[in-house]
Amino acid sequence: MDQISTLPGESPVLPKLFQPEIEDIKERILVRIRPDLERIETEMNRLLTTSVPLISVVGRYILRSGGKRLRPLLMILSARLCGYRGNRDVPLSVVFEFLHAASLLHDDVVDHAELRRSKPAANTIWGNPAVVLVGDFLYSKAILMTVGYDNMRILEVLSQATTLMSEGEVLQMVRSDDLEVEEKEYLEIITRKTAVLISAACHIGAIFGGGGAEEESALRSFGLSLGLAFQLIDDALDYMGSPNELGKPVGNDLREGKATLPLICALMNGRSAEKNRLREIFSGEEITQEAFDEIRNLVIRSGGIEYTQRLAMEYVQKAKAALHIFPSNPTKTLLCDMADYVIYRRV
Amino acid sequence: MDQISTLPGESPVLPKLFQPEIEDIKERILVRIRPDLERIETEMNRLLTTSVPLISVVGRYILRSGGKRLRPLLMILSARLCGYRGNRDVPLSVVFEFLHAASLLHDDVVDHAELRRSKPAANTIWGNPAVVLVGDFLYSKAILMTVGYDNMRILEVLSQATTLMSEGEVLQMVRSDDLEVEEKEYLEIITRKTAVLISAACHIGAIFGGGGAEEESALRSFGLSLGLAFQLIDDALDYMGSPNELGKPVGNDLREGKATLPLICALMNGRSAEKNRLREIFSGEEITQEAFDEIRNLVIRSGGIEYTQRLAMEYVQKAKAALHIFPSNPTKTLLCDMADYVIYRRV
Repeated sequence: MDQISTLPGESPVLPKLFQPEIEDIKERILVRIRPDLERIETEMNRLLTTSVPLISVVGRYILRSGGKRLRPLLMILSARLCGYRGNRDVPLSVVFEFLHAASLLHDDVVDHAELRRSKPAANTIWGNPAVVLVGDFLYSKAILMTVGYDNMRILEVLSQATTLMSEGEVLQMVRSDDLEVEEKEYLEIITRKTAVLISAACHIGAIFGGGGAEEESALRSFGLSLGLAFQLIDDALDYMGSPNELGKPVGNDLREGKATLPLICALMNGRSAEKNRLREIFSGEEITQEAFDEIRNLVIRSGGIEYTQRLAMEYVQKAKAALHIFPSNPTKTLLCDMADYVIYRRV
Repeated sequence: MDQISTLPGESPVLPKLFQPEIEDIKERILVRIRPDLERIETEMNRLLTTSVPLISVVGRYILRSGGKRLRPLLMILSARLCGYRGNRDVPLSVVFEFLHAASLLHDDVVDHAELRRSKPAANTIWGNPAVVLVGDFLYSKAILMTVGYDNMRILEVLSQATTLMSEGEVLQMVRSDDLEVEEKEYLEIITRKTAVLISAACHIGAIFGGGGAEEESALRSFGLSLGLAFQLIDDALDYMGSPNELGKPVGNDLREGKATLPLICALMNGRSAEKNRLREIFSGEEITQEAFDEIRNLVIRSGGIEYTQRLAMEYVQKAKAALHIFPSNPTKTLLCDMADYVIYRRV
């Protein structure tokens, strides 16, 4: 692993893509997804109306806390790539945002989070009981909505994904506060907790859109690689961005005792004294800002962030390559742009 | 409402059925359900084997904490009543025990419970995070198992039930610490939180067993009424049994701020001074054993327990009446015996 050319404490600079070009990609994506985004928001609001007001209130709070609607968009675009033209895609796409929101709500309880995307975490406002139960509601509602599509294959892919996801969440919890996680196990955890649902969104888009076995397989792979890249970048950003940019305090993973790839790298590549210092801080009671800065410097010096970003880039390449079976068209370009943006995003 | 003939602090005596006869019914039921119970236990153990050991450990703990397997048994017997003869009923029946266990785990987090059926509640051993996530796993796994049956109607009934259930849980939470719940709203809450799943078990048994629309409707009604009776008796027992008998400390509902029917009755029928005293204790910080005994005496004097039991008996009659379309046979007799036993059980 190469040493990188930044000073301690400074974030590594991403190669190849210049800032203006990132803004171009972002703008290009935004213009083209706007109509779909608006359909998703309208439908989500409609579906959150229940006879129990607290459910709507907590549900709207978590769903309006700045989510990127990545999963619904991917489902809609995957269906479109397979030839679907119609309006029934939107309610099915919302299923993925509901499942994602349910898992965020339960994560906040599990992690004792106080902030999510710069806003107070739902459990700090309504308490753990409400957050657990509204999470359960969103999950049940998502399954009920999917059942309405009367397609057993979609239900099969979805329920396999949610079962793997919940196993992944338990796995992550079991391994928290444990620094001896290896890259392979880390990848297994992020596959389950993030990539599997994103993959299911793309795969189900293909099934719903009438794609054949080849299209299904291509979009499932696309989603899986994209999901891995997405989580890798998330984990790198936790050692990089300022709290304002990321919307959550930097160093969250470390404070929650999660050993993510940047840290795993530092442990693999650091000098013996550095490793000992790292273990000492990690196993301490509370991690101060100074201690976090110290670990961050170690992580940067060890090349941990760059390594994580490079791996993410490889997955983005793999994701885009999986779409080679589809002819060039605007939807495919958009999906590839979204994959690129996953890497260069700062939030 | 009649006044009943017990001294303050003494539990009201159930009418009509003598203790030996209760034991007879219990024995008769046990002998006949034993083979099914054994099949259920074996299958449940098999299905709890996952790649994540903590899931199996917590799952087995909650599933072995003395559950009566009422829901799986009702599903199996409903299918049999509709003519099903085979072995594929058991894995489907376990779905209902998994869903029930998931909801118990999340309830323990919501209620900050310390005991469940005389054993420490799972969250006191493994903590809220593990309990929330293992609950999520059991729920996901239950849906995945149901999908394996490739029957969209079963999935429809099941996902409607779980959505209503989770709404009911939120509703109950919202109304906790509120004494001004009326009988109608109380019945709405227990319908959703308990009766809907028991009804779904019977209804799905009918669908799986190949029953027609009439059989489905009869078993759905049977389950709904039986579920209501079951919860009514549960709520009455919380003011009656000794902790040893019931397996959880008496007065739990009161301590958790749940106004159940016995208490609602006391509030309707008590004298003005009694009502004020009741409100005072209910809204206090902590309810001591003395305060609970005082409330219990008020509840008994007001006829609250007897009223709750009588309503439960009416629902049991209604449940049994719903089965009139089926010819007399041993399975029907067993279902009716189980319905009777719901009333006379002490645990």
